[in-house]
Amino acid sequence: MKKLWGGRFKGSTNKQCEDYTASIQVDKRLYAYDIAGSIAHATMLAKSRIISKKEAAGIKAGLKSILKEIEAGKFIFKQTDEDIHMAIEKKLIAKIGPVGEKLHTARSRNDQVLLDVRLFLRSETEDIIKGIAQLQKVLLNVAEKNIKVVMPGYTHMQHAQPILFSHYIMAYYYMLKRDKARFAECLGRTNVLPLGVGALAGVNYPVRREFTAKLLNFPKVSENSVDTVSDRDFIIEFLAVSSILIMHLSRLAEELVLWSSSEFEFVELADAFCTGSSIMPQKKNPDVAELIRGKSGKIYGNLMALLTLLKGLPLSYNRDLQEDKGPLFDTVDTVNDTLAITGELVRTMKVCSNNMAQKIAKGLMEATDIADYLVLKGIPFRQAHFVVGSLVKYCLEQHKDFHDLKLAEYRQFSPKFNQDIFSFIKIENCLKRKKSTGGTAPLQVLAGIKKEQKELS
Amino acid sequence: MKKLWGGRFKGSTNKQCEDYTASIQVDKRLYAYDIAGSIAHATMLAKSRIISKKEAAGIKAGLKSILKEIEAGKFIFKQTDEDIHMAIEKKLIAKIGPVGEKLHTARSRNDQVLLDVRLFLRSETEDIIKGIAQLQKVLLNVAEKNIKVVMPGYTHMQHAQPILFSHYIMAYYYMLKRDKARFAECLGRTNVLPLGVGALAGVNYPVRREFTAKLLNFPKVSENSVDTVSDRDFIIEFLAVSSILIMHLSRLAEELVLWSSSEFEFVELADAFCTGSSIMPQKKNPDVAELIRGKSGKIYGNLMALLTLLKGLPLSYNRDLQEDKGPLFDTVDTVNDTLAITGELVRTMKVCSNNMAQKIAKGLMEATDIADYLVLKGIPFRQAHFVVGSLVKYCLEQHKDFHDLKLAEYRQFSPKFNQDIFSFIKIENCLKRKKSTGGTAPLQVLAGIKKEQKELS
Amino acid sequence: MKKLWGGRFKGSTNKQCEDYTASIQVDKRLYAYDIAGSIAHATMLAKSRIISKKEAAGIKAGLKSILKEIEAGKFIFKQTDEDIHMAIEKKLIAKIGPVGEKLHTARSRNDQVLLDVRLFLRSETEDIIKGIAQLQKVLLNVAEKNIKVVMPGYTHMQHAQPILFSHYIMAYYYMLKRDKARFAECLGRTNVLPLGVGALAGVNYPVRREFTAKLLNFPKVSENSVDTVSDRDFIIEFLAVSSILIMHLSRLAEELVLWSSSEFEFVELADAFCTGSSIMPQKKNPDVAELIRGKSGKIYGNLMALLTLLKGLPLSYNRDLQEDKGPLFDTVDTVNDTLAITGELVRTMKVCSNNMAQKIAKGLMEATDIADYLVLKGIPFRQAHFVVGSLVKYCLEQHKDFHDLKLAEYRQFSPKFNQDIFSFIKIENCLKRKKSTGGTAPLQVLAGIKKEQKELS
Amino acid sequence: MKKLWGGRFKGSTNKQCEDYTASIQVDKRLYAYDIAGSIAHATMLAKSRIISKKEAAGIKAGLKSILKEIEAGKFIFKQTDEDIHMAIEKKLIAKIGPVGEKLHTARSRNDQVLLDVRLFLRSETEDIIKGIAQLQKVLLNVAEKNIKVVMPGYTHMQHAQPILFSHYIMAYYYMLKRDKARFAECLGRTNVLPLGVGALAGVNYPVRREFTAKLLNFPKVSENSVDTVSDRDFIIEFLAVSSILIMHLSRLAEELVLWSSSEFEFVELADAFCTGSSIMPQKKNPDVAELIRGKSGKIYGNLMALLTLLKGLPLSYNRDLQEDKGPLFDTVDTVNDTLAITGELVRTMKVCSNNMAQKIAKGLMEATDIADYLVLKGIPFRQAHFVVGSLVKYCLEQHKDFHDLKLAEYRQFSPKFNQDIFSFIKIENCLKRKKSTGGTAPLQVLAGIKKEQKELS
Repeated sequence: MKKLWGGRFKGSTNKQCEDYTASIQVDKRLYAYDIAGSIAHATMLAKSRIISKKEAAGIKAGLKSILKEIEAGKFIFKQTDEDIHMAIEKKLIAKIGPVGEKLHTARSRNDQVLLDVRLFLRSETEDIIKGIAQLQKVLLNVAEKNIKVVMPGYTHMQHAQPILFSHYIMAYYYMLKRDKARFAECLGRTNVLPLGVGALAGVNYPVRREFTAKLLNFPKVSENSVDTVSDRDFIIEFLAVSSILIMHLSRLAEELVLWSSSEFEFVELADAFCTGSSIMPQKKNPDVAELIRGKSGKIYGNLMALLTLLKGLPLSYNRDLQEDKGPLFDTVDTVNDTLAITGELVRTMKVCSNNMAQKIAKGLMEATDIADYLVLKGIPFRQAHFVVGSLVKYCLEQHKDFHDLKLAEYRQFSPKFNQDIFSFIKIENCLKRKKSTGGTAPLQVLAGIKKEQKELS
Repeated sequence: MKKLWGGRFKGSTNKQCEDYTASIQVDKRLYAYDIAGSIAHATMLAKSRIISKKEAAGIKAGLKSILKEIEAGKFIFKQTDEDIHMAIEKKLIAKIGPVGEKLHTARSRNDQVLLDVRLFLRSETEDIIKGIAQLQKVLLNVAEKNIKVVMPGYTHMQHAQPILFSHYIMAYYYMLKRDKARFAECLGRTNVLPLGVGALAGVNYPVRREFTAKLLNFPKVSENSVDTVSDRDFIIEFLAVSSILIMHLSRLAEELVLWSSSEFEFVELADAFCTGSSIMPQKKNPDVAELIRGKSGKIYGNLMALLTLLKGLPLSYNRDLQEDKGPLFDTVDTVNDTLAITGELVRTMKVCSNNMAQKIAKGLMEATDIADYLVLKGIPFRQAHFVVGSLVKYCLEQHKDFHDLKLAEYRQFSPKFNQDIFSFIKIENCLKRKKSTGGTAPLQVLAGIKKEQKELS
Repeated sequence: MKKLWGGRFKGSTNKQCEDYTASIQVDKRLYAYDIAGSIAHATMLAKSRIISKKEAAGIKAGLKSILKEIEAGKFIFKQTDEDIHMAIEKKLIAKIGPVGEKLHTARSRNDQVLLDVRLFLRSETEDIIKGIAQLQKVLLNVAEKNIKVVMPGYTHMQHAQPILFSHYIMAYYYMLKRDKARFAECLGRTNVLPLGVGALAGVNYPVRREFTAKLLNFPKVSENSVDTVSDRDFIIEFLAVSSILIMHLSRLAEELVLWSSSEFEFVELADAFCTGSSIMPQKKNPDVAELIRGKSGKIYGNLMALLTLLKGLPLSYNRDLQEDKGPLFDTVDTVNDTLAITGELVRTMKVCSNNMAQKIAKGLMEATDIADYLVLKGIPFRQAHFVVGSLVKYCLEQHKDFHDLKLAEYRQFSPKFNQDIFSFIKIENCLKRKKSTGGTAPLQVLAGIKKEQKELS
Repeated sequence: MKKLWGGRFKGSTNKQCEDYTASIQVDKRLYAYDIAGSIAHATMLAKSRIISKKEAAGIKAGLKSILKEIEAGKFIFKQTDEDIHMAIEKKLIAKIGPVGEKLHTARSRNDQVLLDVRLFLRSETEDIIKGIAQLQKVLLNVAEKNIKVVMPGYTHMQHAQPILFSHYIMAYYYMLKRDKARFAECLGRTNVLPLGVGALAGVNYPVRREFTAKLLNFPKVSENSVDTVSDRDFIIEFLAVSSILIMHLSRLAEELVLWSSSEFEFVELADAFCTGSSIMPQKKNPDVAELIRGKSGKIYGNLMALLTLLKGLPLSYNRDLQEDKGPLFDTVDTVNDTLAITGELVRTMKVCSNNMAQKIAKGLMEATDIADYLVLKGIPFRQAHFVVGSLVKYCLEQHKDFHDLKLAEYRQFSPKFNQDIFSFIKIENCLKRKKSTGGTAPLQVLAGIKKEQKELS
């Protein structure tokens, strides 16, 4: 079957070659953007008097009817059509005749495909930004609802200092805030019109790229034709930003898995978001959290795929670049789905504050506060740290907790200890004192939640 | 809808969760292996008297009829069935009643899924090894057919020394030879029976794993149940070996792209394996070679995906591991297709020996031979190198070639030069001298081709 | 030897453990930032009346004298000191006595190390932004100086359309413009004060983080203590942005390697930036360009290293995070050096315009213009494309160029061809017509150069 | 300063270029292999009568004295010497005069550097294999010593079935067994002589490569000169195999971190292998385990670096390849150190069997055994699973354990339950029954330990 570009070729394309090079099964997903782009292109061609208004009208009507056909599931995507751009152009010509052959004036597939991808990614990035905000809302709600819950704070997976559970949840909130900013900046670089640069050199017609940009709501047009068709920065950047987001979610997912374990029991995931075992009847597994954690693998892989693709590639367009779509589409879908389900998983989980409270008793987590107590009594911090270190060793040997100790025992380690140590190391006091910006003091955390609630809405 | 494992759950699984966790659209591809594995399992259960022979016969008949149904395209894969294993087991029970409920005795999905994947990958790896051998044959043919063609050899992309084109092609042959060895070794570690270790601990029945292994043609059974269900080494190793292979092909593809350029014109790719431009009527593009080069991106990405997945994952089975299939299947398909089309591309290309011959004249490529000439006349190599360096500088300034120089000119640089220098630096003599193992001397290269032809067949 | 944190430990640290965990040989590089941070911290402690002004003065004097000692090369960095933070604090105590033991009040190594790294990276990112601008200037100069040079434009490494060499060079300019924007945005997220959040929970003292921020010129303070010590986003983001930059440079380097080859001869690199061969006296190799291309490997690897590190890591600080510094430092150095040498390499290369001019004659690059000629005469583009495709086939068979054809020959393919075709396809006219935004028309390109020159300065 | 290859160059190398291209600060580490290789080369040159025996003796004496000088720390490595090969050759000529200029006859740096790297990696791989065996011995000892310790087995981080702690430890043993096999196979492909192929084409002398191979203990010589100097497969393969090993260790490290937590308390790491906090006096952190886990990042990164480096690189030698050494050396060191310290960490940890025993009581881990009990009484497994699922739900509602239930309660779910259920679900019986190959039955596990002890020694 003759290709639209087949004039200079002898014979037809080998079937194996056709299969290997065809991208239509992947890029057919872009149909709506391809048609919207072509409609704008035809409008501009008419405006610039490159085609007549009547021709433009015919083309646009044809394109709209193809759109309907596709959406009705009646359009057959054929391997021999190579890609969505050729499939639609061919169909248009079949539908409206020679006028259809004018659509591809003053453009190339090289700029057309970029237009489609940029339109697609602009829309998806906007959705992802909304998806992040949605997850942030869930976190704010969970944080607000559990403002009184205290949990052990960890460093090195060891009990470190008591903190508010809400404070912990808000840590993820702030990560997502950075993610949102990154997606927004990346969107700014995606939102640039590529159409009108032709294959690589510009076009021979008096096109008005700024007009097309306005039609398609692009605030900028690209500045250099060679760069335009060679550039996939905006995709790599999107994948990098997605990798950081999914990394954040993998950390949260890891915590949900741990917190759901028999050893922690900090949260209980909803039955509706867990699955069972084919062999072990008692199992209720945090599969969703595990899969969220695991999705990091392929998103990182997608980023690496694109970086590898572009490495050492001479300008301008090379067919290698066709391989950008698989990793991009997969990432868009995974990020969207993962954001949505993470929100549901967190929203429906039960927070087991009693279990957290029990664990706080373990690990001598008030040690830092005791050292600071001594500092307030005039002992240099480094000495105070050492004194408390010895006190810790004593507690471990005696299997005692700080709250079990008598004042006399404290005094064996420093004469600075007084009766007020007992009140000083009450958990609520430990928390309250940490009130400078970013600290876990309840008032501080609550103010943060309120501030962010306002900002989000 | 109640899940087969749903006994302990209240309510049903959330739809969003079901979609996020279901793998059936991906792993349905394993159906034939799943059924073959279940047939062997049922046979073993009967042999070990865990079920009766009659029950086994019923199960096997049921499974075979499901196989037919799937192959006839009549089996409907439902998202609610989660995965191919559950889909088939459910269908079996629907088909043959309570006896079907006995099939999952003494196994878990954890070992079952590994059985399926190992059977699949064993078969695919064998195919890939054949595919490599096929490509090697093409290379041997091209090398043999073009045994007289001389080309410029490059280092740093600069003309270095003349070599046989066949010798160059054989470089790729030997790379593929190592690839084949790596796949074969990897296959050895894939070819191990996992079934019979249950969920993670072994099973409560007197199963005969060695018998199942024999039925399914596995030379070994796995040695530790916890390791068995946690292990994805064989997949990562396959992806790593595939990455090296695809890297080799990306290098060949890069050369085909360069060689097809207007600047090189060393080869002419067949029209049937090239495509044109939507806008530039003269274009004939080496798309297939570009795509081969570009495929490296996703294969590397797939390897990185799996390595990331496994990083820091506690034993034993975790749901994250479900994410192994996407990258594996994609790699298997890409490697198979790419091997096949590379062979066709190379087989059908035209070697333009005249163009290569013209380029040999450029670049003063006989310089090393001249230095060696001086060494044979008693000058230490490092001095000879320096002398010839000066000679080179002279040639560049005079815009002359070594063959243009008069003996007197040579003698300005060293009195050791004699009339025999002219014969010494004839290309055919330069080639002939490089006859130690691995060198580009025609006899040496031809012997290598013959030896490898014998070995391959 | 007793550690500063050793109070609760029995016995001393194992030597092998000390070696494995020590980071001082890597992080000693941060000394100046560590001292600057400690000086600001001491100032704030005094301001907040946590220590006395006199104590602060003593601490600051001590720190300054340590700074001098290090810069004079007299400070001995010992493995037993673990890291630069401990080494300096220990030295301070040794120098000024117990007052030195007050410095670590109200801070932890967890926030301290982040302060050092953020100060370091802020400074380095600013340098990199300057380095990019410097390279951009070189490109602008080369583009301006060679504004009349025409080269073959490539797609798929095949001759596509003639373009200005300057236009090609400007493509890299615009890539770098995006890189600069990305680094600037990333800098915004790096430039946030972490100090004052303690180990993970906030601190027990009335610290004024906003005051410290002012002292150290940070426009913002971090908002959540748990997030602050767990976060390495700013490093990953820096590595991702660096990966895109180095990818751009790898593409340029690839072109320089190709352009320096005997087959292209588009540029001649300066002798001072090339090296020779140990064995082949004639060789002049573009080593620098090859190494630039190759550096992409390790920068990508560094990005992957950090993404892997963070994957699935529970909050808050974990020692894994210490591994962030190697990849970060290596990337900073590589990017700085590579930007600088790329500029020199491009600045000193000779542009061989004659060779480019010769190549333009090959490849029938005016085909698109001829199709557009027919469009202007009323033929729909897709038909025009086909007509010219046939014309191309004719030229290939006749071994003729478009300029060799007689009008009668043109007319065999379309009666629309007239005498004006010969002027239409003159290279200068082909270029001039491509004058819409981003096109290769000389006036357009020059205007772009002028605009960017103004913007840069 | 004039380079040894400087004959054809005007002026000297730019300083910045010299710094950017020099590799001596990295590759000086190869000095001993470079000298050993040169000694063998000189011996072969004499044997093949390319130089005289006396000359060879002089060269060898010179090389040995350089070796001593380096080992005594008296050799100054200068940036202007580019790399270790040039540095030693230059020194040799300075030491022994013109005879030294004969050493580089019939070889190139391209084959020389590969010789050095292959000798280096051969030696290091042998060490790593020993290091793995050493770690395996530690695991065998820990497994044997704790053969009676029972722990909860996990899937999805949820209590699944009770298993022997030794069985769990042995899972890591078997992973390492595969790692060892992979390193051994990789070693086979490293252990091939590259020397004698010259720059890319072979050499002009009657070299006896097989003789050199014998001298240096290589079982094979490389088969194609172009392939030989272009090939870095053996390095990538080493990095891939190292990545799998470090992934295994990252999983073990993750478990050690979790097991050391307050929530698990399954093991207690030795004080000598832990470190404290700069601020929290009570902390004892599993830093070594965290760093082991974190090392995976850079090893994966190193693999990705090399794969990227080679992607799309035309043959034969390109300077990009110089970038192979950093990632290789870093990986070798990290793997060696990590193997050693993992062994020590595991060897010195205390196993807290009582804590494990307490946790076994939780999680209704006998559910699978109860289902199998019903199967033995004639109920199809899938039904039995469902029945026990309901029983589990009952236990959860009643806050009861299987051991708390009365027979009557069991019978509410199935009349098949009899008095023997109580003995059937005793942990020791649950374990004993899992005795087929790879199961956790104590006799089975012990036999495995014994078998492997024998194999290792």
